Formats: sequence, C-alpha cells, structure tokens
Amino acid sequence: MNAGEASSFLSTGVQPRTLRIGLLGFGTVGEGVYRMLEENRETIEARAGMGLEIVTAGIRDQAKTRSLPSSFFTTDLDSIVESANVDVVVELIGGCDPAERLIEKALSLGKSVVTANKELMAKQGGRLVNLAKSKGLDLHYEAAVGGGIPLIQPLKHQLSGNDLVKMMGIVNGTTNYILSKMAEEGADFGEVLREAQEKGYAEADPTADVEGFDAAYKLAILASIAFGSQVDVEDIYREGITKVSSVDMHYADVLGYRIKLLAICEPWDDGKAICRVHPAMIPKAHPLATVSDVYNALWFQGDYVGSVMLSGKGAGSKPTASAVVGDVIDVARNHMVEGPGSAIPWAADFRLATIGALRTAYYFRVRVKDQPKVLGAIANTLGDADVSLAAMEMRVVDPEQNIGEIVFLTHTCQESDFQRALSVIRDLPVVLDVCSAIRVEE
Amino acid sequence: MNAGEASSFLSTGVQPRTLRIGLLGFGTVGEGVYRMLEENRETIEARAGMGLEIVTAGIRDQAKTRSLPSSFFTTDLDSIVESANVDVVVELIGGCDPAERLIEKALSLGKSVVTANKELMAKQGGRLVNLAKSKGLDLHYEAAVGGGIPLIQPLKHQLSGNDLVKMMGIVNGTTNYILSKMAEEGADFGEVLREAQEKGYAEADPTADVEGFDAAYKLAILASIAFGSQVDVEDIYREGITKVSSVDMHYADVLGYRIKLLAICEPWDDGKAICRVHPAMIPKAHPLATVSDVYNALWFQGDYVGSVMLSGKGAGSKPTASAVVGDVIDVARNHMVEGPGSAIPWAADFRLATIGALRTAYYFRVRVKDQPKVLGAIANTLGDADVSLAAMEMRVVDPEQNIGEIVFLTHTCQESDFQRALSVIRDLPVVLDVCSAIRVEE
Repeated sequence: MNAGEASSFLSTGVQPRTLRIGLLGFGTVGEGVYRMLEENRETIEARAGMGLEIVTAGIRDQAKTRSLPSSFFTTDLDSIVESANVDVVVELIGGCDPAERLIEKALSLGKSVVTANKELMAKQGGRLVNLAKSKGLDLHYEAAVGGGIPLIQPLKHQLSGNDLVKMMGIVNGTTNYILSKMAEEGADFGEVLREAQEKGYAEADPTADVEGFDAAYKLAILASIAFGSQVDVEDIYREGITKVSSVDMHYADVLGYRIKLLAICEPWDDGKAICRVHPAMIPKAHPLATVSDVYNALWFQGDYVGSVMLSGKGAGSKPTASAVVGDVIDVARNHMVEGPGSAIPWAADFRLATIGALRTAYYFRVRVKDQPKVLGAIANTLGDADVSLAAMEMRVVDPEQNIGEIVFLTHTCQESDFQRALSVIRDLPVVLDVCSAIRVEE
Repeated sequence: MNAGEASSFLSTGVQPRTLRIGLLGFGTVGEGVYRMLEENRETIEARAGMGLEIVTAGIRDQAKTRSLPSSFFTTDLDSIVESANVDVVVELIGGCDPAERLIEKALSLGKSVVTANKELMAKQGGRLVNLAKSKGLDLHYEAAVGGGIPLIQPLKHQLSGNDLVKMMGIVNGTTNYILSKMAEEGADFGEVLREAQEKGYAEADPTADVEGFDAAYKLAILASIAFGSQVDVEDIYREGITKVSSVDMHYADVLGYRIKLLAICEPWDDGKAICRVHPAMIPKAHPLATVSDVYNALWFQGDYVGSVMLSGKGAGSKPTASAVVGDVIDVARNHMVEGPGSAIPWAADFRLATIGALRTAYYFRVRVKDQPKVLGAIANTLGDADVSLAAMEMRVVDPEQNIGEIVFLTHTCQESDFQRALSVIRDLPVVLDVCSAIRVEE
C-alpha cells in the first residue's frame, strides 16, 4: 500500500487493513493498553492510519479470573511471537528471561516490537536495537523510562542534533515520593517508606527503588541514547536514599536546596562520560526542585537547545499505556507504508569515567566531641586534600555528653580528594561519626 | 539504498552520500542552523546516518556583509527550490508570501521541507501537510512553536493515543517576560515593555506579541495536531496583555495566583472545541506558574497520560536551530532509506465553539462611588445572570473623591452570562469603571 492510498483511506474512512497486536503480559499495564485501544479507538486509528487489534495476550496464570474470555489468553508466549496472525509484539512481562529471547525471536521473524522493559533495554538495548536496525524493523521503548512522559523519542529525534552538556533526571517515582514527604513532613526515611508501602507507592521489598537500581537502569537507557553508545549499567555509580535523614532535609532547606534522587550523565574528560545515581541537593530555583511526589522529569541541557525539561507521571497503568500506545501508533504508520524501521543504532565501545573523576560540591555532616580545635582539625584535613569550604554551621546537640554537630558545604572539588579527606576525618579522634555526605548540583 | 547498507555505513564510518540542504533565509536562525551543523557535525551525521551539507542559502539583500563567501548566497529563492543539487528545503523566511509558494513548489518537485514558519503553518498547515502526505514526503515544523522544546512531534507521536482533556501553553516569550517582570517588580505594563524593547526581548512594534497574535498562530498549530483537524486561526478567541495592570498583579498574588498569557484549547460540547488566547490567573501551585521570563511551556492533559509538561527556551537563534536540525535529521533518516514521509494528515472541517460557550471562573475589578448599596447593586446584577461569587475584597482608594475599589472572584459560570452581567455593571450609576476582568484557570 502506498502513501496515496493511505491518504485516501484517511479521508474516506475506509479501513484498508488491521495491525494485529500480540501482547506479552496482561498485568496492569497490559490491561491499560487494552482499555486505551478500546476507549480511544477512533482517535488512535485515525492517527495510526489503520485498524489496530489486540488479537491475543500471553499470561503466566491461566486460572486467574480476568475480564476477557479465556480464549483471548494463552500461556504459550512463544506461540504469540510465532503466530502468522500477529504483526507486532508488545512485550510487557519485564525482566530479561524470557523477554529477551521472545523479543529476539519476534525481530528475527520480521515483527516490530514495542517494549516497556527497562531492565532488558538497559542491559541488552544496544544489541536489540542493532538487530532491529539490521532487519529494518521498529523497536520502540518509550514506556521504559518516565511512564507517559515523552523522553526517549525526543532524545532520539528533536534533541538529537545537540551535543549533550548535562542531563539530570528524576526517574523513580517511589523515591521521589519518599523524599518529597520527608521534606514536607520532616519525617524520617523509615517512617515515610512504611507509609508509601501502605499506599502502594513502594514495594514490599523496596530495594530496587530505594537503592537506586531502577534509576540506574533508566539512566543507562537515557545515556545510551544521548551518547549513541551502549552504556553498561554496571559502570554507573549508584547510591540509594536510605541514608538520607530528616536532619539533612532540614539543613538542605535552610541552605536553599531540595534533596532529590538524581540520575545524572554528562560528558567528561578524554571522551568519556560520568553516569551516576545518588541523592543530591539542587537549588530550590532549579526546575527539578519543583518536581514532587510520584512525578518524574528529565532536565536536558544541550549545547544549542539550552535547557529543556519534560515532566509528568512516571508510572501507573494509564500513563504507561499512553507511551506504549504512542509507540504502537508509530509502528502502525511505519508498517502501513512498509517503512524501513526506526532504530538508531548504538555503538558498542563507550567508556565511562569512574566516580572519582567527578568534580562537584559536597554537603556533609559530622558529629564531634564538643571541645577546642575540632573545627581546626577537620578544616585542615580538608585543606590538605585541596577541598575548600563555602559554608559551615556548628551547634551543640547534646550538652551533657559534650556532643556537637557541624555541617559543611564545600566548593567544587575533586571527588577522589573529597573522599580521601572524608576517610581521614572519619578517623580523627575528635570525630564521633560522619553522618552524611551528599553531592550538590548547582 | 536499503536499511542493511545504511547499517553497514554506520558501523564502518564510510559516508554513502550527502543530503544537500537549501536554506531559504539566513537571518539569526539560518546562521544558527549553519553553525550547529558545522560545530556538531560528528554527532549530527551519526544520528542522521549520512552527510549533511548546506549547499546554498537564499537571502533578500546580497549587499549585506556576511561571514560566508558571496557565492554561497543567492537572492533567487526559486532557483534553490528548483536546483537539482538541493534534496531538502529549509524555509526560514517567515510570513506567507513567498514562503507558501516556495514550500508548495518544493513538495511538488519531490523535496521534503523543514519550516519554522508559524504564520504559514497556522493558516495553511492542513493543505501543506496533506500535500506532503500525498507525495510521500516529510513536512516538519517543530521550530514553529516553542523554539527548541520538543512539542510538535511528541503531540504527533508519543501523546497521540490520548483523547485531549485540556492543553495550556505559554508560547510567547516576550509576553511571559513582561508578565514575569511585572509580577516581580510591581511595575506597570508600559514600563516593562520599554525595558523589554531595550533588551531586545520585544520588537519596536510589539503588537504581534502583546496582542496575542503570535500565540494564536502557535495555538492554531498545536490544536490542529491535537484534534487532527485544521483549526482556523481566525476562530481563536484572542485577547492581549496590554490591559493587565500592576494592581491586578498584586491582587493575583494575594489570592494565590500568577497571571500568564495562556494559549488554551479543550474539547467542548457537541464535538466542538474552544481555543482561546488571553491573560489568565493560574494557581501558584500549577506547573505553568513556575515558567518565568522568556521560557515557554506546554502543559498537556490527556485522558490516559494525565498531565505532562514540556518546557524550555521558546525562541532564540540556537534553541530554534536545535529544533530545525532535529527535523533535518529526521528527514535525512527517512530520505536515506527512501521512506514514505512522516506527515499525519489533518482533516478539514473542524468547528470551534465561540468564547461565549466557555464556562470558567472570573476575577474582575471595578471602581465605584464610595456610598451605600453599591455592593448590593453589583451582587444583584451578578446573581440575576446566574454568576455566583467565591471571594470579594473592597477598599477605599480615594477618600477625598469618595472612590472605592472592589475585587471579585466568581465561581465557574457561563462566559456569555458573565459578559452580560459585566455590561450591566458597567452602566450602573454607582460604577465608575470596570478596570479589569481576567479569567481564572483552576
């Protein structure tokens, strides 16, 4: 079918054919995709230029009660991928096994793929994208990062002429909710985590979120697109939010900052880049500081575009379905005209610098014996390591035990120098504890 | 050339061919595009999958001194469009004549087009998009709205499965700068306009910006995409910011709002839509309230995605060049594989409701004689028109002349009812002046 026919179809309303979709997985997102196609059929088919039909869905548990007839479902996922009645495969099962094998099989059989799988794209994205490219097929993964927020495609297309200056994302809704509540309520991490678990915003086992694994997967994907090269998720520096305390939240507020779990990447020396996920203080005036609760955002700074920010709900059945359906529409438009596929290949050999190479400012807080020369000892240790101070605040926290607390804000320094100084400070006889150390993004 | 060859080109680094670009216009944006291609050549060509070369630029005044050899330029714009050495035409001259004729000719000759022309796309977008579609060519216009912010393509693609609930944009940097300064400094419109003109943020003749014409063009484009139908710019309700005063800014602040020039569209009764550009109060907690100075933003609410916001610098040589180059990269990727063109057609017959059909809340301020029964007379007039009040504040502004001022905030009411009441109020013997009336978006 050629473009002229497509045009006449759209103006006459005659449906030339239907794109048949096989869903792998029918959890909340899968159901969301199904419902969105039903409810918005008119809009979606007008944009897609053809009919769209989900012909089957692959599930794990055939016994579970579902809203659709059981003939619609199968537990044989391979049969969906292999079926002559399926034109495009939408993978929503997550994880690497069997998703990786099924996506590879779909591409090998000439079927375009839409996936929401952040872990698989973070680990195997380069290989899968290049496989799709070699077959002239689409491999779309907008839902893998930021739910319904358009992030991936704008990076691949509208922003792609820019050399990246810096990219910072709030890409995990659970941790952003926890940190927002901590800031609002002055509550501690454990307390807010329990509240988030009760509300269903955090998993029973919250490790993937609170330790930054989820954010690191997403950063690997975003950085791979921005640099046009596979960024190995194992090379991303990662630090979770479990050590962020209400005391640090308070000091951040006083100093004019908010604490967010940021996923950051930027080009670094010698053609390398630094990719890192950690709690960071950002000035209240920064656009990312206003992104609260379960909202996600990507702040992109390019050499030509300057800074742009894309924000919205980063998770949930309906926003994620929106991203998946947007991708399916693109596949349909490409499919209808027998287009050549949309993949932009990723090169293989991209090197990340280690976190020690970073230059950044630091906030840190120590508990000390309340006695003379304490501040001098710490300040001298920092000076010896070429770390200079921007601000300092000291107070007695326990007069009976003679315990004081000091908060420091450094100027920009070398991470490795700072960490060396910090380990010396930790061992000073007058220092009881290094309570926290949080990077500051200006 | 097929996709397999494209892939091998990308992995071997051999350049198969070059996409030859003819620039129409070489003002600040044209120079920005030229420089971006030079400076970021490696990044851009890797993403485009081929070489990109601007082979010629059309200008009006050959005599002007320029940074490139005069042989690069021509005043014969038709010769660029017709040249066998030009594969794609980038139109940056603005206005309808001769841009419309030149774009039509380019498409007729089989050349894809990238344009930054908001006026032309607002007035003739439907026709030009459908012409491109019928020819299987690309017609991209990301730079026409919001400078470098990815707006147009996300609406056309990632968000396109959503039925629009409401869309609100800050799409004119000049007026946003003026309103931001008025809010910050408590200064009046005329004063800040002069300051903006001195800084080059406002034109000597500021009519297109301050009267909302520029924003209406941009809204026509955004709404046409969102509804998939040509929205006639003449049908958009339009009201500028010249009447916004520092007094209203003060009251807005006290009431918890910011005043912004918003471009709004939403589906309305009977399958129609309302499109409108006017100053509006939005709650300080709304994401758009934080968009200040020359920044632009689009807040999109879809039935599935919820609300997303896309923001950044909405004008300027470099951000606009970023959008144009992003579009050129898409054309190149499509061109390389002899793809089918990207245009999504717009239908022709879309009807807008008139502004009278709107239901919204209102802020308004009146000057009155400071005497008994004034408030009763106004309140009764509103009540007669089914307009109920949410808040009211009254003060004496000139005790010697017995002049008072009353500020009202209404509940949601029918625009036509409110306007009828307002015209009655204007004629009340106790009312000296209706100073302002500003819609409130919640």
